Amino acid sequence: MAAAMVRTMSTTAAGTPPVSVATINPKLVWVALICDRIAGRLKVSISVLKCEYAVRGEIVTHAQNLQQELQKNPESLPFDEILYCNIGNPQSLGQQPVTYFREVLSLCDHPALLDKSETHALYSSDAIERAWQILEKIPGRATGAYSHSQGIKGLRDEIAAGIAARDGFHASGDNIFLTDGASPAVHMMMQLLISSESDGILCPIPQYPLYSASIALHGGSLVPYFLNEETGWGLDVDELKKQLEEARSKGITVRALVVINPGNPTGQVLVEENQKKIVEFCKNEGLVLLADEVYQENIYVEDKPFHSFKKIARSLGYTDDDLPLVSFQSVSKGYYGECGKRGGYMEITGFSPDVREQIYKVASVNLCSNVSGQILASLVMNPPKAGDESFESFMSERDGILSSLARRAKALEEAFNSLEGITCNKAEGAMYLFPRLHLPQKAIGAAQAVGTAPDAYYAKRLLEATGIVVVPGSGFGQVPGTWHFRCTILPQEDKIPAIVSRLKEFHEKFMDEFRD
Amino acid sequence: MAAAMVRTMSTTAAGTPPVSVATINPKLVWVALICDRIAGRLKVSISVLKCEYAVRGEIVTHAQNLQQELQKNPESLPFDEILYCNIGNPQSLGQQPVTYFREVLSLCDHPALLDKSETHALYSSDAIERAWQILEKIPGRATGAYSHSQGIKGLRDEIAAGIAARDGFHASGDNIFLTDGASPAVHMMMQLLISSESDGILCPIPQYPLYSASIALHGGSLVPYFLNEETGWGLDVDELKKQLEEARSKGITVRALVVINPGNPTGQVLVEENQKKIVEFCKNEGLVLLADEVYQENIYVEDKPFHSFKKIARSLGYTDDDLPLVSFQSVSKGYYGECGKRGGYMEITGFSPDVREQIYKVASVNLCSNVSGQILASLVMNPPKAGDESFESFMSERDGILSSLARRAKALEEAFNSLEGITCNKAEGAMYLFPRLHLPQKAIGAAQAVGTAPDAYYAKRLLEATGIVVVPGSGFGQVPGTWHFRCTILPQEDKIPAIVSRLKEFHEKFMDEFRD
Repeated sequence: MAAAMVRTMSTTAAGTPPVSVATINPKLVWVALICDRIAGRLKVSISVLKCEYAVRGEIVTHAQNLQQELQKNPESLPFDEILYCNIGNPQSLGQQPVTYFREVLSLCDHPALLDKSETHALYSSDAIERAWQILEKIPGRATGAYSHSQGIKGLRDEIAAGIAARDGFHASGDNIFLTDGASPAVHMMMQLLISSESDGILCPIPQYPLYSASIALHGGSLVPYFLNEETGWGLDVDELKKQLEEARSKGITVRALVVINPGNPTGQVLVEENQKKIVEFCKNEGLVLLADEVYQENIYVEDKPFHSFKKIARSLGYTDDDLPLVSFQSVSKGYYGECGKRGGYMEITGFSPDVREQIYKVASVNLCSNVSGQILASLVMNPPKAGDESFESFMSERDGILSSLARRAKALEEAFNSLEGITCNKAEGAMYLFPRLHLPQKAIGAAQAVGTAPDAYYAKRLLEATGIVVVPGSGFGQVPGTWHFRCTILPQEDKIPAIVSRLKEFHEKFMDEFRD
Repeated sequence: MAAAMVRTMSTTAAGTPPVSVATINPKLVWVALICDRIAGRLKVSISVLKCEYAVRGEIVTHAQNLQQELQKNPESLPFDEILYCNIGNPQSLGQQPVTYFREVLSLCDHPALLDKSETHALYSSDAIERAWQILEKIPGRATGAYSHSQGIKGLRDEIAAGIAARDGFHASGDNIFLTDGASPAVHMMMQLLISSESDGILCPIPQYPLYSASIALHGGSLVPYFLNEETGWGLDVDELKKQLEEARSKGITVRALVVINPGNPTGQVLVEENQKKIVEFCKNEGLVLLADEVYQENIYVEDKPFHSFKKIARSLGYTDDDLPLVSFQSVSKGYYGECGKRGGYMEITGFSPDVREQIYKVASVNLCSNVSGQILASLVMNPPKAGDESFESFMSERDGILSSLARRAKALEEAFNSLEGITCNKAEGAMYLFPRLHLPQKAIGAAQAVGTAPDAYYAKRLLEATGIVVVPGSGFGQVPGTWHFRCTILPQEDKIPAIVSRLKEFHEKFMDEFRD
């Protein structure tokens, strides 16, 4: 493990050297050790061993153990609850589901209710109406049947109509693939694009580790491009070009560019001009643009509205013939935060019929995504409209959640920036802050002494002192020699003051302990 | 395409030669052509191109096109509906969901109902009670939160209790991984076991094409063993040994044995003595036993009760130390047939903590399976008990479905066996018949002339004449030179007489056209 640390540390001065999947995470040495230990009967696939997934990694396991300890012996730790700020899981931290969505799901799960008069005492009339409409779109009204492998056609058409209304450009249900959340959609595309490690995927650093994990599982190469922390996690097209050329010079065929907008873990929202340049870059270089747009509803600044990459491409006059484009969306994020429902879709445009057929084939091997998730995806893209019975209460729930998230983002950002040795860009969107730790040399030394990355060391100490779970920046990738952590903005608003004060108290003590 | 045909045909006389994934399906030549056509910008991964998934293949696409034609112009075809007998999708053919299960799901989707007195007018009291119990098992009662990546602990414990009650041996919730149906669980294990094409997986021929597809997608080698049609699709351990040795002699490291019991597409139920020999074989040869047990509730003969492989292994005195064993289960089959809910689990035993950690890691990359599917899996493994309010109506729905399935299996089997040139083993279990076509040489010639496998030719002609969709045996693999098709027993009982007469009429004309 020390070797990996040294390797990471020694690149500090070199600006932004290429980061391979193997150098992102020093834990890989540990993985190599395991590989040796799994001798004989069961050899685990190398690609599985190489895969890492930080947001559910070591620190979370440690937190789960502490939680069990807390249950057995509530007085044993210096806090009374674990606060999971490691993952964008709003309802686990108390966010309530949107009533209208749940009414419709509940009715579709038990369609016999629709024939009973008592149902009107329990459900809003527009939810009942909507459930009828949805059942009409499902062959045989069978919510328990496998659907078409792309998802139920009528629901895909409804989603396409929602996309068209959002973008002002045509969308087609034939281009929608409904999936169990966005993750399987990302895997599907990686499966399609990657044959061997000579196939590269350009990914932001820092990145959501789904991408590094999926590329590792499919045996490809992650080609990193660095977001610029100085310019609010700006995405610089010159950096894309530089990294593309460097990868090509090593014999890697770069197949696609991943852009996460709004950013995860970095929370920035791209401006239109920047997005245009990115589209041009993909078109000129023959890359598939994989646009992770799952945070499209989570924007907390007024001057940066969300623009889908498809809208940008179409507004530049580019058609299906000009570039292949995939947009990922999920019911897990936005104001709905329905992570447990596993709904989502990808919209694919600009692929030849041959390639589409291959995508369909991969989708068909898993038969279909869950029908409740499919229904929810259609609701999210076509929520109640003005005049509907539920419209006002729906809007009040929606706006309540989004404005509270904006306040929480601001409160936490200010708290981080008030601390010695922490700088934090604004969360313009998404559900995260990604503060930078300017750690004293002594703290770095203490981390090295126990064979841990300095940010992982900080996160572990934070957890043990406060019960707050954050993810070390090394799990997302970062400019070597810089240290960060990702913290969600999801704890309920009434808990924020206590979190801020626990955080401050811990941090001040930590700095007192290690100040150079 | 002709080359592939010749290759398949020329092996006819050779008894049971080894079948590689590449020789199962002549369509691969077409795939190679596509591979050449997808030039330039987007190269599709080789493993994706190699993957084939017959149950949603060419014939189904053809059927969907005919269905559209029928909608536009109802008089244009010689039948008035398409009957999808290609896939085990009971509710798409009119099977009704089990009321109690849907009541509980509906309540869990909208927990606010549980606080309202009107709810008692619409739901049975034990369903309300059960929904409360389930919510108590979910942290924060948040059915919309990502769960633990293995699934909600309380639900896993409930499933483990159901397994223990079924088998009479201990089971632990820690060994359960809840998944979106059985397919992702199979992929997860293939992902873990396969590093390269030198890793082999022993699979039955005929097999459910999920296995060949998943092995192809993960770049491994399918090592076939042939089921013996003469002995009712018997699984002969000598055949396993022969194929294992042959694969080893070619440098393939065989990692696991897939057994599907009750069989798919073959419908046989294994007897205890046979299962014991299979367990001994895996133990002696150091293979992981992958037991596909999704049809455990679908048995239509009284003298062959279902025994899980874990029960067999434990009754032989084997523990976790003796062999690694995976059992796959799904909410899509049984009497429930809830395919659209995508629920399922795998129970893994006999793996070291290191390997389990790797399995957990792969599970965590997709975060978790859908929570409704998790809840349903727990209901299926712990349905209403005697004394519960819903027990009698539940048992009546359950037994009604199962006894009807048994009658349908028998009626279709008898119909097939009454036809010239068709022989058909009994469906002892599962949801399928796999009749053998003894085709006249002239029919084989006619198929060859259009570059199609003879069973695919038959299936296409059947579809075009009757609207009945079956899957050609070549999609499952079969002894070269033999021809079959798979037909589900799922059309509703009142439709069976019409199906039988359409089938007979078509078949007689077909034979008249081609009789040598």
